[in-house]
Amino acid sequence: MNLHAYMEQLKNEIDAALMAHQYSSTHTVAEAMRYSLRNGGKRFRPVLLLMFLDAFGVERKKGMATAVALEMIHTYSLIHDDLPAMDDDDMRRGHPTNHKVYGEAVAILAGDGLLTDAFNVLVNDQSLDIDTRLKLVRLLSAAAGSCGMIEGQMLDMEAEVKPVEDLEKLKNIHQLKTGKLIEFACLAAGFIADPTDRQLHKLRWFSNHVGLAFQIQDDILDVEGDAEKIGKTVGSDEASGKSTYVSLLGLDGAKAMLEAEINKAVAELDGLPADTEMLKELTLYVAGRDS
Amino acid sequence: MNLHAYMEQLKNEIDAALMAHQYSSTHTVAEAMRYSLRNGGKRFRPVLLLMFLDAFGVERKKGMATAVALEMIHTYSLIHDDLPAMDDDDMRRGHPTNHKVYGEAVAILAGDGLLTDAFNVLVNDQSLDIDTRLKLVRLLSAAAGSCGMIEGQMLDMEAEVKPVEDLEKLKNIHQLKTGKLIEFACLAAGFIADPTDRQLHKLRWFSNHVGLAFQIQDDILDVEGDAEKIGKTVGSDEASGKSTYVSLLGLDGAKAMLEAEINKAVAELDGLPADTEMLKELTLYVAGRDS
Repeated sequence: MNLHAYMEQLKNEIDAALMAHQYSSTHTVAEAMRYSLRNGGKRFRPVLLLMFLDAFGVERKKGMATAVALEMIHTYSLIHDDLPAMDDDDMRRGHPTNHKVYGEAVAILAGDGLLTDAFNVLVNDQSLDIDTRLKLVRLLSAAAGSCGMIEGQMLDMEAEVKPVEDLEKLKNIHQLKTGKLIEFACLAAGFIADPTDRQLHKLRWFSNHVGLAFQIQDDILDVEGDAEKIGKTVGSDEASGKSTYVSLLGLDGAKAMLEAEINKAVAELDGLPADTEMLKELTLYVAGRDS
Repeated sequence: MNLHAYMEQLKNEIDAALMAHQYSSTHTVAEAMRYSLRNGGKRFRPVLLLMFLDAFGVERKKGMATAVALEMIHTYSLIHDDLPAMDDDDMRRGHPTNHKVYGEAVAILAGDGLLTDAFNVLVNDQSLDIDTRLKLVRLLSAAAGSCGMIEGQMLDMEAEVKPVEDLEKLKNIHQLKTGKLIEFACLAAGFIADPTDRQLHKLRWFSNHVGLAFQIQDDILDVEGDAEKIGKTVGSDEASGKSTYVSLLGLDGAKAMLEAEINKAVAELDGLPADTEMLKELTLYVAGRDS
């Protein structure tokens, strides 16, 4: 199976699991939660988690509830980020954002609901022993919490007012804002497959390199991408005066850093006792994608 | 020790535990989280939890992390409820609300941070075995989630537009919006003390009666309370056309229902193999309080 068919298959499995989950009956908040869950993208984070389980030779169904919880947290963060008080976005992935459809109050509650229910999904996952479930709650609450993704969102908002001039600071923002959930996807697979500490270390490094590569390619696409494919105006970062890898390193510098991060990510995969061919293809795809 | 000195002592212990907790270093969101945590009220929910542990003869420190997590969830719900898109309140307990001090974006993130970190606090509680921790995460995520407190908040918002005319519907709103966290306080003490299922059943009934009594007394105070003591305008419910126990039952009817709920709560306490004298005093205090 080629990478795209494989990713599509995993995405379909995740979509089905997300929709099968019952989030309360019929009230408006539950409807708003489902609206944003349905309007998913590539499901990159849960796909990554399931690909690692495949690579470790572990049944995918052992990670499905964790994949669902992870996507719920990601979805909540998008709903809240899109709010007028935050990024004030009207559209996401070609559809009106949650608050444009349901109003701000319901959108806030829908985000709160997805965030809270995600932990309920994790803790009720009968396919994992309670020790693993507890580790996953610890890991996800730390990744998404005030020292993780939320701190990243705060730093990112501050950087819009006062652009960062330092590469390490820019990396830190992304490692928190988007990197923490990508790291969770990889480490969660590790915990579920129960590899050694040495392997968890490799999973963490891999996720850091892939997360950075993902962001650098985003910045490159903003300069030389196809507006129709990426679904937003090209050049928006430069217009907003926001610091990016391209603005700090130049286009060639950013491309060189992207290649270096991809090589480091692949090297970490080589060190794992797992069948990582598809994960290598995914890593190369992250760098080469056009949307 | 009399009830007030006892409640004050528990409140001080809870305040100290809330402040001792580290929520990330110095960034603005962490500061906003601490701002609202510091501006606490009577800490009714965690006080109730600790009083039950005392009644069961269990060391209070076994419930302190749970008490902290519970108050974090309660505090997040107040921050989000006060937002302009929700209740649009400028003041809470004599201080500017979170978004008036830090702006809406930070207030949203501070709420998200408290909610997420609360689960991290629960799961890292070294004083409880992992089975109990898992039960508490399950219980708290269900109580606060889209089928619990969040559904209650949604129903309450809908009731402001279209007042409920049915007593059972009004009870349902309160049992979800405020009752679920009060129920968690009681059940969590039960899980930590490890009583039998029969006792958990009694704890649940007690919490339902006390929660209702709490709300009925709120509605009575809105009619005949002292504005200075309750910290808001008297008669605000009637002015807003909101359904209350007083509007549905009349003042005498509401007082009769309050007395009935208090008697039922005390009867549940009588059935517990615990020293419930202080809890009985607390229950009577809920009905007799003037603020």
